[in-house]
Amino acid sequence: MSGAGNRPAAGPGSGTASGPAGRTGRRAGDSGTREAILAASRKRFAEHGYDGATIRRIAADAGVDPALVHHFFGTKERLFAAAMRLPVVPGELLAAAIAAGPSDPAESLGEFLVRTVLQAWEMHEIRDIFVGLIRSASTSEQATTMLREFVTEAIVGRLSAVARPGDGTGPAGAQYRASLVASQVVGLAVTRYVLGLEPMAAASVDMLVAAVGPTVDRYLTGELS
Amino acid sequence: MSGAGNRPAAGPGSGTASGPAGRTGRRAGDSGTREAILAASRKRFAEHGYDGATIRRIAADAGVDPALVHHFFGTKERLFAAAMRLPVVPGELLAAAIAAGPSDPAESLGEFLVRTVLQAWEMHEIRDIFVGLIRSASTSEQATTMLREFVTEAIVGRLSAVARPGDGTGPAGAQYRASLVASQVVGLAVTRYVLGLEPMAAASVDMLVAAVGPTVDRYLTGELS
Repeated sequence: MSGAGNRPAAGPGSGTASGPAGRTGRRAGDSGTREAILAASRKRFAEHGYDGATIRRIAADAGVDPALVHHFFGTKERLFAAAMRLPVVPGELLAAAIAAGPSDPAESLGEFLVRTVLQAWEMHEIRDIFVGLIRSASTSEQATTMLREFVTEAIVGRLSAVARPGDGTGPAGAQYRASLVASQVVGLAVTRYVLGLEPMAAASVDMLVAAVGPTVDRYLTGELS
Repeated sequence: MSGAGNRPAAGPGSGTASGPAGRTGRRAGDSGTREAILAASRKRFAEHGYDGATIRRIAADAGVDPALVHHFFGTKERLFAAAMRLPVVPGELLAAAIAAGPSDPAESLGEFLVRTVLQAWEMHEIRDIFVGLIRSASTSEQATTMLREFVTEAIVGRLSAVARPGDGTGPAGAQYRASLVASQVVGLAVTRYVLGLEPMAAASVDMLVAAVGPTVDRYLTGELS
């Protein structure tokens, strides 16, 4: 077992997956306990989905106190990212990007979000793991459910906070807008990195930001009917 | 072996997969010969991709004359659709839609294309087979190559005919525009039908046409930088 899941965490909000929350020293047996928690997490997330898996039950499966799970991993979202060996916590990355906003004042939020996502995907270690996640999600019903619930909570939930609210009576509200953004971003990832469709796959990040950013802006806040 | 691959063809340009081109009567042994050709096609397409598989080699593998392959299946595109058991020939459906144009003069080409694609996907028999194709393409390199080459020729090629041409020196031309359309349409299909991401998955075709149609219009002919 190597890699991302065992690295010490960077600071909170950095978007880096895994690592103990506020750990002050390494004890003998930590590594075995962490692995037991991660193994129990993988099984529970796969069998019960992201929503259905609880830290309490994962702790019970691993034979540890729930407080220890929180101590090692912080939130359920971070535990999921560590269990899936994601090198970043997607929702935290997104939340940090939304909070920071475009560093270039000439760039719109949509352009900035597309740039942030593409820059993450351009890193091989990130791309390979997400491509693996997409592959497994497309082949198993259980993995599909798990990914849908995770994307709904971590991505759509956070995006909808910056989307124009609807009138509250129909599906045309902020969640709908956020799920449209997800459709374009997922499509970009699948056609560029999984399918390798040219000439889009060879286009620069700047070109794609200019082309796709305004789509994201319109889905978030523009006229949709 | 059942279903789509054995149905008689509708007229040319109808977008219906398979069936002999201009067959006038059924001979003894036709069915076995057809199956031999389809089996040889599946193997060649999988091993050599869509571009690398030739009708001449498929015919040789099946032990028949290439003219017989053309007689039974018409084009390579139709042979591929029949071999993959697609209930429609995607590129022919697209070409027919582009040629016909929106029946409602108030509808843009982008809106009409999104409506055409969604209406096809709403049919269970079509959706199930395409979801299967996407699943297999995401799990095997060979299947990925085959699907990429097919989408490039059948979909991107035809879409680029209605896209605004570039200056011919960079990737920003008609093919690039068409591949951006593919990114949004593939993303719509994956998030709505594979992932089932709400509220988008529950939205009506009309809602999605209104939301996504203008994106397709802009990718085809609008400003992208």
